[in-house]
Amino acid sequence: MSRSKAEMRAIFDKVSNWGRWGKDDERGTLNYLTSQKTAVAAQLVKTGQTISCARNFPVHPGPENPTPALHHIVMGGDDPCAHGIPGMEVSLDFIGIAYHGLASSHIDALCHVFVDGKMYNGFPATEVRSTGARRNSIMAARDGICGRGVLLDIPRLRGASYVDPKQPVTPQELSDAETTQDVRVQEGDVLLVSVGRDAFREKHPPMPGDGPLLAGLSPDCIPWLFDRRIAVLGSDAVHDSTPSPDPIEDWTIPVHMCGLVAMGLHLLDNLYLADLEKACAKARRWEFLLMVAPLRVEKGTGSPVNPIAVL
Amino acid sequence: MSRSKAEMRAIFDKVSNWGRWGKDDERGTLNYLTSQKTAVAAQLVKTGQTISCARNFPVHPGPENPTPALHHIVMGGDDPCAHGIPGMEVSLDFIGIAYHGLASSHIDALCHVFVDGKMYNGFPATEVRSTGARRNSIMAARDGICGRGVLLDIPRLRGASYVDPKQPVTPQELSDAETTQDVRVQEGDVLLVSVGRDAFREKHPPMPGDGPLLAGLSPDCIPWLFDRRIAVLGSDAVHDSTPSPDPIEDWTIPVHMCGLVAMGLHLLDNLYLADLEKACAKARRWEFLLMVAPLRVEKGTGSPVNPIAVL
Amino acid sequence: MSRSKAEMRAIFDKVSNWGRWGKDDERGTLNYLTSQKTAVAAQLVKTGQTISCARNFPVHPGPENPTPALHHIVMGGDDPCAHGIPGMEVSLDFIGIAYHGLASSHIDALCHVFVDGKMYNGFPATEVRSTGARRNSIMAARDGICGRGVLLDIPRLRGASYVDPKQPVTPQELSDAETTQDVRVQEGDVLLVSVGRDAFREKHPPMPGDGPLLAGLSPDCIPWLFDRRIAVLGSDAVHDSTPSPDPIEDWTIPVHMCGLVAMGLHLLDNLYLADLEKACAKARRWEFLLMVAPLRVEKGTGSPVNPIAVL
Amino acid sequence: MSRSKAEMRAIFDKVSNWGRWGKDDERGTLNYLTSQKTAVAAQLVKTGQTISCARNFPVHPGPENPTPALHHIVMGGDDPCAHGIPGMEVSLDFIGIAYHGLASSHIDALCHVFVDGKMYNGFPATEVRSTGARRNSIMAARDGICGRGVLLDIPRLRGASYVDPKQPVTPQELSDAETTQDVRVQEGDVLLVSVGRDAFREKHPPMPGDGPLLAGLSPDCIPWLFDRRIAVLGSDAVHDSTPSPDPIEDWTIPVHMCGLVAMGLHLLDNLYLADLEKACAKARRWEFLLMVAPLRVEKGTGSPVNPIAVL
Repeated sequence: MSRSKAEMRAIFDKVSNWGRWGKDDERGTLNYLTSQKTAVAAQLVKTGQTISCARNFPVHPGPENPTPALHHIVMGGDDPCAHGIPGMEVSLDFIGIAYHGLASSHIDALCHVFVDGKMYNGFPATEVRSTGARRNSIMAARDGICGRGVLLDIPRLRGASYVDPKQPVTPQELSDAETTQDVRVQEGDVLLVSVGRDAFREKHPPMPGDGPLLAGLSPDCIPWLFDRRIAVLGSDAVHDSTPSPDPIEDWTIPVHMCGLVAMGLHLLDNLYLADLEKACAKARRWEFLLMVAPLRVEKGTGSPVNPIAVL
Repeated sequence: MSRSKAEMRAIFDKVSNWGRWGKDDERGTLNYLTSQKTAVAAQLVKTGQTISCARNFPVHPGPENPTPALHHIVMGGDDPCAHGIPGMEVSLDFIGIAYHGLASSHIDALCHVFVDGKMYNGFPATEVRSTGARRNSIMAARDGICGRGVLLDIPRLRGASYVDPKQPVTPQELSDAETTQDVRVQEGDVLLVSVGRDAFREKHPPMPGDGPLLAGLSPDCIPWLFDRRIAVLGSDAVHDSTPSPDPIEDWTIPVHMCGLVAMGLHLLDNLYLADLEKACAKARRWEFLLMVAPLRVEKGTGSPVNPIAVL
Repeated sequence: MSRSKAEMRAIFDKVSNWGRWGKDDERGTLNYLTSQKTAVAAQLVKTGQTISCARNFPVHPGPENPTPALHHIVMGGDDPCAHGIPGMEVSLDFIGIAYHGLASSHIDALCHVFVDGKMYNGFPATEVRSTGARRNSIMAARDGICGRGVLLDIPRLRGASYVDPKQPVTPQELSDAETTQDVRVQEGDVLLVSVGRDAFREKHPPMPGDGPLLAGLSPDCIPWLFDRRIAVLGSDAVHDSTPSPDPIEDWTIPVHMCGLVAMGLHLLDNLYLADLEKACAKARRWEFLLMVAPLRVEKGTGSPVNPIAVL
Repeated sequence: MSRSKAEMRAIFDKVSNWGRWGKDDERGTLNYLTSQKTAVAAQLVKTGQTISCARNFPVHPGPENPTPALHHIVMGGDDPCAHGIPGMEVSLDFIGIAYHGLASSHIDALCHVFVDGKMYNGFPATEVRSTGARRNSIMAARDGICGRGVLLDIPRLRGASYVDPKQPVTPQELSDAETTQDVRVQEGDVLLVSVGRDAFREKHPPMPGDGPLLAGLSPDCIPWLFDRRIAVLGSDAVHDSTPSPDPIEDWTIPVHMCGLVAMGLHLLDNLYLADLEKACAKARRWEFLLMVAPLRVEKGTGSPVNPIAVL
């Protein structure tokens, strides 16, 4: 359903968690994921199979990767003693990445997005200085995120291999997926919603010159996510349809804006979920232990991550 | 006990796992950490408390950090619409790091060290090209490492706050710590051996101009580690005394060399263990679920990591 | 005229300067640019107008820029005292670039290209280690290149605004441009050959998905360049037609291969020559003082540069 | 003579060029270096010897280099066809640098320093955004700086090999050097003042743990520099004594502050002048053509440079 910007503003206000955990809170919905919930989640492990939910470090240029990551060998097997220390033969490398965007599996800190010059819990955008974020940095998640993961497989629900980018996921579909998958999203969960991004690209490889085309959630899903009190939201794409088939003036990335800013909901972008989808379908079970460990960048706006599902 | 280089070579040969898992194996002792062991480890979780075992991203220069990591804000709160997309206010950053060394919490891939021009399982060092590692890259651990973590707290054993760098840890001490801590290191474990690095530096801050001074394991520990068939070894320092109080000609970093190259044992360097030590002592329990998730760098020699212990 | 690979090999051998300046020479045709010639070139200055021949630092992604350069503000006007030193307000930045390619104005060192595993003067390609170039690095030009610059304006010769990429420049055209421009290319010169790259792109902006399309010199020009004993060759494109309208098996970039490797001719790629073309046409004079100052990267394969023409 | 901060403020106001070239001027004293002066300077060339005034790209950590530059081989001679294009064997590298500081030869743009939140010509410091400098960027010098270079060799004046860091250079010494060297600093010149930094370090290598120790100009020199209407000021150190033997409250780097901000005087830091000193002494001539070519970083706060003196 097409939304006006006034309606989006109303949704934003309705799903706001500002002040819920105190005026200085920087953790947002991570507060729902208590130690107790972590302990319960650990009990979900059955086979012990570990599945990565990340893409490879995105060093290759491409339509969805205009600023590729850097991976440089600093010392290789052709000169392993170059450091000059006798009795030591090593290889060394360097990695560099501006991980926000469409190519890298990463987590957004709550300072990554602003609405009208404010971030989660009302801190001014200017608290993200040229020298780093003074509020809402990724350090909010420095001890890791370890909880109950739930995968809602929307392509499976639709009987297709992917979600058509022109048909964003609806809240009714989130509930229907729960039903068909016999799983219920609960407070403190790390919810992964799959849109079959990679299956889409296999069927529809980008033509030379194509821009990005990623399926996403309808903004209508935002209240659903709020009501379920999830701790973190993840996707194999970027949550927001990119581009939107139904753009809303001033609200280019509504899920990011309402999620990160209003709800204080950390987001996992560009995950790789095809392996997890297969494993869950095979086990007929879509809940598991999920672990996400951001790098501890003191004033960072997020981090590349490799979330691990344990079945 | 001081070792000759011939003795070190004999140890190296004795702890070799080359061929144990086939001539093309690149996972080494990760093979000990089966799904079954992961499932059993998940049962260790009691309170659900999560504790990071990593240091902050090492951006500050220092005696142990001559090539600091890079953290640059690419777009901050003073120019959040610079990308030109209306209705989108964001902050973005870039991180870069050559993570090997003494400052960054990271995992060494099996291609990081060579002995006589060969890496684990006999692959030539030249397989680590200027363009990346063709063998034994960090992709061996791409699905994460999730297993039983055991912390052997050696300062606690010694009744001190840190291990004196001139008195490396002995294998007898590893066994004694097991006894006093009532925990036994088993096949497939992720073993963390603490030397109280940070407590040492608190008591003995580096004087201007001091070089590094890190306590480590005596090379005599190497057969002990081999016999226990651990999957991964971690430390709050770098395993090898740096510098060694008892250097062995041609064997500058014996634990690294015998571990990574002979045993195929992945190593976690420069962890931060002070918080974990306290929590374990309080709970009087030194086993826990431990999860390590390297970034999936396709030809990488390792990765910065933030290992998470779940108690 | 279409060349076979045997013919290319013959040209390569014919234009070889290996051994001409001794078996250890790493400067190649820079040897032609003597102090004496520099002094004579300084006399060419008339008005003193300085014109940059470089493009802006290529930070914007694009079809010809798949791995853009990095420019990050490290400390900006919103936090100028972050360094903690009282009485000091500063802004700081970081630049990073892998400058080879089609986007950055740069100079190629003689170690940048190999033919059959050898670089200029027969040094093995393996002398360019993962740790840097041990031979033929950019340090050969560390004291700058300051000499007589000559611009051959081929679009002007053809009465067009650009060279059609399907009609590479011929040696006869190089001579004809000399005639119509009343200038003669001499030993020790820095020769700039303009193909109107930017005018071409203005008329023919790349369609979404287009690959690169750059006009260049026919391989037939190679003996002409050798005979004139120029010191350096520059272009607003990359010398070699990209892609070639007449590819030669095994010789993808013949001018680079014969130039850098056989002749020891340093190359300037991706210059911006439109301003220089205009100024020369206005003054009716196509010779000037030209200065190129590579960064002194000790084992570098080249450098970003901003060549300055002084009229 | 020790200055109070009120006196420094008075000097600052006295040497201000704000508004001299219009309220929107961003070039400052570069305006003194006209084409005419460039043409005259070219006539200074006698032997044509070119001498680099730069240090090597600072990749090695050290006391004066806490954040070393990056130089990474991206593709080396051990894998020159890794790009997959047949018939092309290449080596490629990457460089990265945060060049401000004490180690890199670089030019400061006028936006590099602020006094009381303002840069040259009164633009607010906040015009240097997290996304780059909107005013007074290095693009003011994009067409290169090519003019009369004058070297004042202060160690030579003092009959020593270096200037004692505890005895900053006085304005009387600048005039005396002119006399003994029979050269007069004129409007539009690029003035290089040598303090023998490298000779000092040869005699007094830093002890482990030493901080920086660089000789500089007394703040009393500032009016002298203003009166002479020089275009650019260069040094083999950083102009300001570091640390100052006579610190002035609120004025940590007075030459930088009065130079860049009040006068609009571009600065060249950390040059290497030992070779130029020798050549000038041998020729008994301390004026020459000098060329500086910053990289064209569109919103940069400066650039690494390799200034070339042509004798």
